Amino acid sequence: MEHTIDLTDPRSALDLSNIRYQLIRLEDTIIFHLIERVQFPLNPTIYSTNAITIPNFCGSFLDYLLMQQERIHALVRRYQAPDEYAFFPELLPSPILAPLKYPQLLHPNTVNFNDKLKTAYIKHILPAACKPQVADRGERYENYGSTAVNDVACLQALSRRIHFGKFVAEAKFLAEKEKFTDLIQRRDTKGIMREITNEAVEKQVLCRLELKARTYGTDPGDNSKDPKVKVNVDAVVAMYRVRDPLLVRFKDYVIPMTKEVEVEYLLQRLINPAPEAVTENRHWLLSAAEAFFSFIS
Amino acid sequence: MEHTIDLTDPRSALDLSNIRYQLIRLEDTIIFHLIERVQFPLNPTIYSTNAITIPNFCGSFLDYLLMQQERIHALVRRYQAPDEYAFFPELLPSPILAPLKYPQLLHPNTVNFNDKLKTAYIKHILPAACKPQVADRGERYENYGSTAVNDVACLQALSRRIHFGKFVAEAKFLAEKEKFTDLIQRRDTKGIMREITNEAVEKQVLCRLELKARTYGTDPGDNSKDPKVKVNVDAVVAMYRVRDPLLVRFKDYVIPMTKEVEVEYLLQRLINPAPEAVTENRHWLLSAAEAFFSFIS
Repeated sequence: MEHTIDLTDPRSALDLSNIRYQLIRLEDTIIFHLIERVQFPLNPTIYSTNAITIPNFCGSFLDYLLMQQERIHALVRRYQAPDEYAFFPELLPSPILAPLKYPQLLHPNTVNFNDKLKTAYIKHILPAACKPQVADRGERYENYGSTAVNDVACLQALSRRIHFGKFVAEAKFLAEKEKFTDLIQRRDTKGIMREITNEAVEKQVLCRLELKARTYGTDPGDNSKDPKVKVNVDAVVAMYRVRDPLLVRFKDYVIPMTKEVEVEYLLQRLINPAPEAVTENRHWLLSAAEAFFSFIS
Repeated sequence: MEHTIDLTDPRSALDLSNIRYQLIRLEDTIIFHLIERVQFPLNPTIYSTNAITIPNFCGSFLDYLLMQQERIHALVRRYQAPDEYAFFPELLPSPILAPLKYPQLLHPNTVNFNDKLKTAYIKHILPAACKPQVADRGERYENYGSTAVNDVACLQALSRRIHFGKFVAEAKFLAEKEKFTDLIQRRDTKGIMREITNEAVEKQVLCRLELKARTYGTDPGDNSKDPKVKVNVDAVVAMYRVRDPLLVRFKDYVIPMTKEVEVEYLLQRLINPAPEAVTENRHWLLSAAEAFFSFIS
């Protein structure tokens, strides 16, 4: 499994080519989950607060399922992994398993873009992805559960993707410490944004996404002239970034959000640095006995 | 969404072409989940009873996560849908939402192959699917959670697939009532098996599976001569059925299990038939207000 990121090993976790491999692999995960999700109509009722009455809960049906899902995953230590961020961090129980010690990969920070991601997903990403080619499919009451289960999978994959920006940022910071320290000290967010942007790579991502969405979304045995694609390919690409600025119907989210995560992280990078602890931990490899459980890949 | 099965409408749910469309669509779901699963090593520890100590629970780590997952889905009425069967039916809480009335699609029956499926999955399907092309990837302690989460998704999709056999059986029974009644009354399981078998369709399934596993498992942007396939294609096909009887390394499960479900269901088809209730319900279409929530697709 060369190139797969290993978050128990700082040398692997902060290697930019490993991080890139992980981000490319996550594209598949996100597209798979989105294809599963759009089997069902948009079903807007499940995103509306209290539209479905749930005892002792104030929120949307999706929120309820997402929160319950996170509570179970918290029990088995998902949110102790440095690449996992909860949508309801304040509602999580303590793990039932002994804590897992990870090496200190990231600088301590409070960056969590999940609220913003959830809003973008519900308001923009999902309606575009569900957009039917021909006619509105209406609402299917009996699919609310399946719909929400698939939404949770999409949101968790997208969240992992954008928060990987922290690893990207840390790797870039370590590679050009002086330059970034200067930019951060001057709070030059535009300068930071410029430094972390690689337009050539972004273009590659978009081309790959289109190809993947079309390939994974089409039954390879369908030999008809105009085979049905199970997902709106334009919406998948637009979820990451608009290719054509004239295409105003879609907005872009994943790439800019990842970069916002990077900038926010870097702005916190020099606060309470505790350099000895960080440096020491960076060279500390987790023993198998201690690396008992986590949720990273 | 023509051809998509509608379990609130008996005419749709028991239409063989709709059922077939659903089974073909489920192949994608199963392959997507399996590709996600085999990102991680086999990690046999999570399938071994008490290998990981969980407070107040006696079972494997996978069992724990599967049970907790089913409990949440039960709260939102997943297991009231006629195509959903739990692995831990005795441990499920009552739904927090008012029950959903489905039309009576199937004859009352006790057929549940999940234990058998779980055993086959852990002992045969998964080891074959995880089989690395080159070398053993070892065990990754920090991936136990991700591994189990993906196993749950695979098992739920496979379970839905094999239990769809009940719909296949009911549709075939209704189409040839006299013939099946005779076979059932004579407990002629071999005769029933012969009647429900369509070898031409089975062969098509296997060809399609191979093509899908290879297509969805390969990064379409990988232009190398020998692109890496993310899943063991032979194992995916073997999961459904052995193509070549000489290939003794793999055993086949999904197709024969679906057929066993069909046979078991038919053997219970004439017990306490309550024909008026069934007939009446069969023509009863669910009103939108009542069809409030379920987990079917």
